[in-house]
Amino acid sequence: AEMPPKPVRLGLCAACHGETGMAQIPGAPNLAGQKLDYLRNALKDYRDGSRNVPLMRAAIGPVSDADLDQLARWYSAQTPQPSAAQP
Amino acid sequence: AEMPPKPVRLGLCAACHGETGMAQIPGAPNLAGQKLDYLRNALKDYRDGSRNVPLMRAAIGPVSDADLDQLARWYSAQTPQPSAAQP
Repeated sequence: AEMPPKPVRLGLCAACHGETGMAQIPGAPNLAGQKLDYLRNALKDYRDGSRNVPLMRAAIGPVSDADLDQLARWYSAQTPQPSAAQP
Repeated sequence: AEMPPKPVRLGLCAACHGETGMAQIPGAPNLAGQKLDYLRNALKDYRDGSRNVPLMRAAIGPVSDADLDQLARWYSAQTPQPSAAQP
């Protein structure tokens, strides 16, 4: 698959999920290579509160649907990197 | 990290998430290499309903905490495989 263009709002997500979708902090999931439909649904569920994660709801609140979709495509297209250590 | 023993209840999860954590059906997320703390929290949230996914709640309802933890460790320890096509 072709690599999507780098999303303009990537920095917002990258602080916790990394630019390539490998989690940077405890509690945050890896997103690299995750199924696109799953990521889209997760974003929808965070936005409408059916997944009640205040940080995620606040983070994506101001982001347009088009930008969210670009972010989902970006992360889904990344290749997961081996992690050095699992806790 | 050492590969955990194959969980006795793996078949229950593998139908949708695959034995190695690569999703088998639309809507199911990949679990291979996912952060262990994230997987543990997700299972807790499915069990108590704060993540309201009836299929997951039903699936893990009869599974002991020890078995769930074994499953989380198993999937977290897997190496994500490149997927042929997204989505």
